[in-house]
Amino acid sequence: METLQVALGDRSYPIYIGASLLDNPDLFKPYVKSQQVLIVTNTTVAPLYLEAVKRALVGFDVFEVILPDGEQFKSLEVMDQIYAGLLQARCDRQVTLVALGGGVVGDMCGFAAATYQRGVQFIQVPTTLLSQVDSSVGGKTGVNHPLGKNMIGAFHQPQCVVVATDSLNTLDDKQLSSGIAEVIKYGLIRDLTFFEWLEQNMDALLARDVAALTYAIKRSCENKAEVVAADELESGQRALLNLGHTFGHAIETASGYGNWLHGEAVAVGMCMAAELSTRMGWMTTAEQDRVVAIMEKAKLPIKPPEEMTPEQFESLMARDKKVQAGQLRLVLQKGIGHSVVTGDFDVEAFRATLGY
Amino acid sequence: METLQVALGDRSYPIYIGASLLDNPDLFKPYVKSQQVLIVTNTTVAPLYLEAVKRALVGFDVFEVILPDGEQFKSLEVMDQIYAGLLQARCDRQVTLVALGGGVVGDMCGFAAATYQRGVQFIQVPTTLLSQVDSSVGGKTGVNHPLGKNMIGAFHQPQCVVVATDSLNTLDDKQLSSGIAEVIKYGLIRDLTFFEWLEQNMDALLARDVAALTYAIKRSCENKAEVVAADELESGQRALLNLGHTFGHAIETASGYGNWLHGEAVAVGMCMAAELSTRMGWMTTAEQDRVVAIMEKAKLPIKPPEEMTPEQFESLMARDKKVQAGQLRLVLQKGIGHSVVTGDFDVEAFRATLGY
Repeated sequence: METLQVALGDRSYPIYIGASLLDNPDLFKPYVKSQQVLIVTNTTVAPLYLEAVKRALVGFDVFEVILPDGEQFKSLEVMDQIYAGLLQARCDRQVTLVALGGGVVGDMCGFAAATYQRGVQFIQVPTTLLSQVDSSVGGKTGVNHPLGKNMIGAFHQPQCVVVATDSLNTLDDKQLSSGIAEVIKYGLIRDLTFFEWLEQNMDALLARDVAALTYAIKRSCENKAEVVAADELESGQRALLNLGHTFGHAIETASGYGNWLHGEAVAVGMCMAAELSTRMGWMTTAEQDRVVAIMEKAKLPIKPPEEMTPEQFESLMARDKKVQAGQLRLVLQKGIGHSVVTGDFDVEAFRATLGY
Repeated sequence: METLQVALGDRSYPIYIGASLLDNPDLFKPYVKSQQVLIVTNTTVAPLYLEAVKRALVGFDVFEVILPDGEQFKSLEVMDQIYAGLLQARCDRQVTLVALGGGVVGDMCGFAAATYQRGVQFIQVPTTLLSQVDSSVGGKTGVNHPLGKNMIGAFHQPQCVVVATDSLNTLDDKQLSSGIAEVIKYGLIRDLTFFEWLEQNMDALLARDVAALTYAIKRSCENKAEVVAADELESGQRALLNLGHTFGHAIETASGYGNWLHGEAVAVGMCMAAELSTRMGWMTTAEQDRVVAIMEKAKLPIKPPEEMTPEQFESLMARDKKVQAGQLRLVLQKGIGHSVVTGDFDVEAFRATLGY
């Protein structure tokens, strides 16, 4: 088992990465505060892993809330199922929530933990590659609003993150590729060596080679932990983690939550960011080609849905959380392994990238 | 104008108390971060004071959301009106929210500020006595759940609090008395001198004597600011501010949100806490009589609704946020001016107080 630390002062926490961790009481018990535990999971994950986690929590009063599966259920309305579960079980402020599932479960359970009785503690148990390398680390929680993705939420750090690599065996291929998109992101924004490793080991990742996956998860979590430790509340460099996301969120919102996987939309967004960066002379055409090539190798899409218009992109991107005083800011590339957050991009190049 | 300070390190903020403050730009402008301001108010307060506050904010891009008026609308569903208003106006993370109204508006606007784009700043402009002396200070925000009052929320401190005492002129008598209940609370929990002042000056308060009201507000805010500064997240003595609230919340939940005013329910709760304290020998019958007498003098109820059963009380009180490991904890009196938070009360005396 690998252990990493997210260094956030008195909110620091460990990330455990390894096989067969889900039913290990030693990983959970030190982070449970009282007798009460409520596991939040979904209809897909519950039949696979709920019993294992319950074995790890034997001796506690364990309650469960099983949500419908999908990004379209990441809403305030569905949040109410968690609140009602907590209240019906008479959970008090000492309760520990456990998020067992992918990014949607983690974001919703984390937001419930941030807001139930003004804040209780929680443990992240991500079961998809995407949540293992990204959303379970760093304390971003929340839900979507019909008018914008992730617009309602809070920063709330977990007590620990338990990454069981064997849970990836039950993930379908599309979900695996979606997670790989966020792995590639770390290479692009700050880790050229890792990007090159990914170019060489993509086949092993797609074949679910355990050693390759474990390394990719560890290197991703290390990158994320470093960025989050330096800028917990995203006042600066943490926004780099949004590479591809401003374009990607527009795709997700326009096509209806749940129709595009998050990582698929982000992959297209990273291709568009690379295109815009190249149009501005910030990276070479050869580098842009490498970006597109690695997405294709990871079986990720590289173009937005055909029915999406440039006007839709512009309108949806104007609602991005990085907008300041009406000025859109984007994460762009200055070569591979070096991203910047900037409002200083060429408008014509931007419009050309959107397809005007 | 009086100025108090809530001392919370880098989250410290001033409370301004005085007449004719609402249209004063100097009080607002230093706390507005960007061009965007969204005022949250309700259908009762908007016709009275919205224009004044807009005059104070001239030069900014001011948007507004006008909520229905009443505790029954303090829900996640109604919260959506604020989120939708923010998104439709394309408010970004630099937006400043302004809560213009009573406790419901302040709690909801504050929770919107805590959760919109994972946190934006806000200003409290309380227009009821209850919100001026209690809910606008201290950073508790949130909404009710059908299964329990204030069960969903966050701690989120405002940038400043602007208490315009002349806004009390438009308050009806029941609302005024409801606010006085929270004023009396400070005397009971920690300020015998203030309690005695209230016994002598209740007629002046009910007659809306400006000097008396200003003093009562100032003394209440000073008490609250001291308690909050010592224990921002309610890990200890801040729970004293809940005197009467565990009984009171049960009354509010049982009778349907909005049918009992908050201060009315708390007044009954304080009488019940005094009764239980007296039954346990922690205060004298004479002291208990003084508690009941001051509530009557303030035209507040002293008994729970007749249709409420002891079983209802017990069941609803078991969901209180102060419950730990299944043990109900109550705020009780050790004489006037000295409250304690304790799980160590006599169960038979408690049941007798509920009317078993």
